[in-house]
Amino acid sequence: MEDRTQLWNDLAAQIAVDSIRATAAAGSGHPTSSMSCAHLLAVLFADHLRTDVADPKAPANDRFVLSKGHAAPALYAALKAIGAIDDAQLLSLRRFGSPVEGHPAPLPAMPWIDVASGSLGQGLAVGLGLALGMRMDGAPGNAWVMLGDSEMAEGSVWEAMDAASFHRVGNLVAVVDLNRLGQRGATMHGWDAEVFLRRADAFGWSALAIDGHDVGAIDDAYRNAVADERPTLIVARTEKGHGVSFLADQPGWHGKPVPADRVEEAIDELGGVRELQITPRTPPAFTPSAIVDAQPAAPPTYDGPVATRKAFGDALTWLAGHRPDLVVLDAEVGNSTHTEDVEAVVPGRFVQLYIAEQTMIGVQTGLQAYGKTAFSATFGAFLARAFDQIRMGAISRADLRLCGSHAGVSIGEDGPSQMALEDLASMRALHGTTVLYPSDGISTVRLVEAMADLEGISYIRTTREATPRLYDEDERFPIGGSKMLAAGDQVTLIGAGVTVHQCLVAHEILGAEGISARVLDCYSVKPIDAEAIRHALHDTGVVIVVEDHRVEGGLGDAVLDALSAGPIDGRVIKLAVTQLPGSGTPEELRAWAGIDAASIATAARDSLIGRATARTE
Amino acid sequence: MEDRTQLWNDLAAQIAVDSIRATAAAGSGHPTSSMSCAHLLAVLFADHLRTDVADPKAPANDRFVLSKGHAAPALYAALKAIGAIDDAQLLSLRRFGSPVEGHPAPLPAMPWIDVASGSLGQGLAVGLGLALGMRMDGAPGNAWVMLGDSEMAEGSVWEAMDAASFHRVGNLVAVVDLNRLGQRGATMHGWDAEVFLRRADAFGWSALAIDGHDVGAIDDAYRNAVADERPTLIVARTEKGHGVSFLADQPGWHGKPVPADRVEEAIDELGGVRELQITPRTPPAFTPSAIVDAQPAAPPTYDGPVATRKAFGDALTWLAGHRPDLVVLDAEVGNSTHTEDVEAVVPGRFVQLYIAEQTMIGVQTGLQAYGKTAFSATFGAFLARAFDQIRMGAISRADLRLCGSHAGVSIGEDGPSQMALEDLASMRALHGTTVLYPSDGISTVRLVEAMADLEGISYIRTTREATPRLYDEDERFPIGGSKMLAAGDQVTLIGAGVTVHQCLVAHEILGAEGISARVLDCYSVKPIDAEAIRHALHDTGVVIVVEDHRVEGGLGDAVLDALSAGPIDGRVIKLAVTQLPGSGTPEELRAWAGIDAASIATAARDSLIGRATARTE
Repeated sequence: MEDRTQLWNDLAAQIAVDSIRATAAAGSGHPTSSMSCAHLLAVLFADHLRTDVADPKAPANDRFVLSKGHAAPALYAALKAIGAIDDAQLLSLRRFGSPVEGHPAPLPAMPWIDVASGSLGQGLAVGLGLALGMRMDGAPGNAWVMLGDSEMAEGSVWEAMDAASFHRVGNLVAVVDLNRLGQRGATMHGWDAEVFLRRADAFGWSALAIDGHDVGAIDDAYRNAVADERPTLIVARTEKGHGVSFLADQPGWHGKPVPADRVEEAIDELGGVRELQITPRTPPAFTPSAIVDAQPAAPPTYDGPVATRKAFGDALTWLAGHRPDLVVLDAEVGNSTHTEDVEAVVPGRFVQLYIAEQTMIGVQTGLQAYGKTAFSATFGAFLARAFDQIRMGAISRADLRLCGSHAGVSIGEDGPSQMALEDLASMRALHGTTVLYPSDGISTVRLVEAMADLEGISYIRTTREATPRLYDEDERFPIGGSKMLAAGDQVTLIGAGVTVHQCLVAHEILGAEGISARVLDCYSVKPIDAEAIRHALHDTGVVIVVEDHRVEGGLGDAVLDALSAGPIDGRVIKLAVTQLPGSGTPEELRAWAGIDAASIATAARDSLIGRATARTE
Repeated sequence: MEDRTQLWNDLAAQIAVDSIRATAAAGSGHPTSSMSCAHLLAVLFADHLRTDVADPKAPANDRFVLSKGHAAPALYAALKAIGAIDDAQLLSLRRFGSPVEGHPAPLPAMPWIDVASGSLGQGLAVGLGLALGMRMDGAPGNAWVMLGDSEMAEGSVWEAMDAASFHRVGNLVAVVDLNRLGQRGATMHGWDAEVFLRRADAFGWSALAIDGHDVGAIDDAYRNAVADERPTLIVARTEKGHGVSFLADQPGWHGKPVPADRVEEAIDELGGVRELQITPRTPPAFTPSAIVDAQPAAPPTYDGPVATRKAFGDALTWLAGHRPDLVVLDAEVGNSTHTEDVEAVVPGRFVQLYIAEQTMIGVQTGLQAYGKTAFSATFGAFLARAFDQIRMGAISRADLRLCGSHAGVSIGEDGPSQMALEDLASMRALHGTTVLYPSDGISTVRLVEAMADLEGISYIRTTREATPRLYDEDERFPIGGSKMLAAGDQVTLIGAGVTVHQCLVAHEILGAEGISARVLDCYSVKPIDAEAIRHALHDTGVVIVVEDHRVEGGLGDAVLDALSAGPIDGRVIKLAVTQLPGSGTPEELRAWAGIDAASIATAARDSLIGRATARTE
């Protein structure tokens, strides 16, 4: 191979210069954090990353994740060098409407970027997901992840390290840009590469330290990392602002563009503006096995009561039987969420991540970026551990199919630490989410089936205890729909999941008293069936919304929001959890929370008295 | 010292038996996970944990955190052995109304428990916070943390390990109950204690492995750990279900009580029911320095525009000057959140945790359990990383004072990964929270002052850019209040934070057109000023709520909820972020989101047209 030293160094200087130019044009951004990794990116893009620039999602390609997302200018400069974007686009950095955003995001116009970054510590798990996806398909690629040294303080990095070595992922290479300086000064470990080598070794990785501005050393390290059968961490000692004397290793420059009156001086010191174009290495020939959906078996069905968590596992197992794109992830609770049922059928498409929810979501984000239809499941309460990863998934336009089991006070004796009580609020608030909460086995199966084809983040909330069958097998459950389970014209009871059953019992109680209550199953919390709710309020004058969730941000707020599109012609009463629960039986806790049938019936009666009074005023 | 072997073994057997009895009585729970740590707890409570049972919050006491919260029966059994609770209370495990909950919780009737556990991986950071609190006060105590082996997969554990060694915390001892079996089968590393020793060593801890059922080895390990100047990890190889042949190291018993027909057999094998009572070691004499609040200086004030994040830092610095109980935590963004201003004044009460949000909140939870008035701050977006820790803080009845800076699309060019857009929704949904969002420097200072004395979780949302002064220095801002900044009778504009200023500009625009708009500053999002909002709707017929936040779960939903307490006599229009933002200037992004003054004015005009039409129908 020819001596590429000059090219690599020229390309690194170009990346540094372009990072300075782009951030100076933007008036903000992180040039010095980009300059520290310029050589690392130059050697990677010139001679190691195998990708088809014209077809960035080709299955044979390597993939690259910039976990230190604030170094976006360096990534854009590299994308310019490989011809993915042009100089005008580079210089549109951070402008309104430009796909060259302040931190990387996989916009339609930016297909070379797989996931959004900018919340630190998340990229390694995504890289692991990409690497696992490649391995599942027998693809030849490697996943490369560039980390910053500050983010090595995030536990999520070490969680992903643990999972990567456990899964013996040989096609994952992580590079730490050890530039010593964080946002506010020195990092915890400064230039002490040994700390990270010892830790990586203890976490089962190959690890080596290099001078991150020595292109020959970088080239060797990359070559060795790819050859290594273990995941490899390259700790690259670098200088923040390298190559410009007034920036290099100087504090106080984090997130600051070079001032306009010093841009020329900085660029001159780096050898001026260059217009190098490179072609990345061609991926090896690879034809993935054709994905052929099998003929579906009959979907699961239930005659009697079943827990919706069980129906979720049944539905996934059924889907996995005919959809070879489907992958299921667990965080060591598969016997509770019932994803273990999938493991039993298709172990090769089941990924056990142990109690590591952040890694589970990161890996899922990587798997879906590689084209997999991935489901993750844990207790709804514990998805809170990965809320930032899910948030970044929304910004990544990722298709994340999530299940949170053991929802609400209805789990009973285990107590509040295990109860999902804020999950509807947090999931509803994210961009582009679908939030589902089925009440019986049949509707669960149909909603899981729908999730497999949904875009964006979809969340299904399941229940620990068995609930009675409500629907026929041929019933369909469109996203955004609802079901009227009982007609009535004096009051409407709206529930979802377990509270649908409480509403039905309340309907019976009220009916025996001559009160006619309508019952709606709002299995689709977001989008919600605004039309059915408006009609119900119009027809009955009172809507009582009952949810096994905190009173803020859940079904009740979704109903109010749906109604607020027009004048609200009646009363909306929210029954939900307003105090901190303890242990107890599901029945005791629902009664305590005021979301059981008796409480609903009382609220309905009271609402009628209120109206009668109002009418006689 | 006398030979305590017999006592320790008897006490361990009693803890195992009582765990079996309590869970059998409850019909649920985790006896086998309790039995694996019975010897570890017996030796700890009998001879190492120095505490005054009658005064569990005494500053000289050691503190104990059961990170593996599902082993709660073992903890309750130990509390019974030291006379904190009696046998009847033990047997009330998991019953409705009992303070002996399914997972530990620091209820008023359970003062020996400092924090709730049950979401794994969180206890070590809490222990670190307790240890740091002791050190700040010169107290003689140690913080002890019992971890499960499954939770060692959580990155949050390693994040806390890193922080503990960085802070050279010698009074922290962690014990891993390495019982090999997780919820669904073998853990990732089984009985391989060496893995954890290597990792702990690489993370700067002392570490040793022992047989976790050998009481002499446990005693030695505890003694050495306390003497060690470094934090120490004791990896104790144990058997799940130890001491009962049909349970010991058997799969399939996680979270299952011993069946009624085998309870006697199990208890017999453990030597029967015992009634040992022990007295923990007495803590050394220690008189903490008297906490004497200094005379407050004049609070910060501002003539012109200031960023509320700057005012937050100023307010904290001011408070720290006269409140010696105040401690401030940073996750390496103190120059953005302005907590670095506190560091400059009281470095001994500033804790730098680097980019480790989960550890920051865990440490804060520990510090407040030790009696400190602790504030944490990072970007609002990155508090999402610690959402599960904050959730557990709510269950812990912890007083956590949180600041999320850089809220909303108004941060501009950095893009969506850095924008807090779901924080109001997630913080509102938690039990007992106070959610504040000031619009100028004066109100920020007063709200931060109020937070220092608030119970529960309080959250203040601050803004990146400077905003004009709105209030006089003598204005007061009660929690749950609002301010009417402009009178008007045709339409009400409700904002908080940055949108208050947009509402005021819209008020001017509309006024010039002869439209009279009321403007409310809802600086208190939770609790919200329901009365002022109801009056506004009554007086003006239309309320337009404007927020720099997602449309779900934030200020708009809070306003709707407040109004739904009665008939909603008018229209509520929500202006909020409904699409995924990119980069841009704050002005461009507010206009794009439809939350700028022009958009508000348009919505106000449209609402009047709508009403005029409605009247002529």
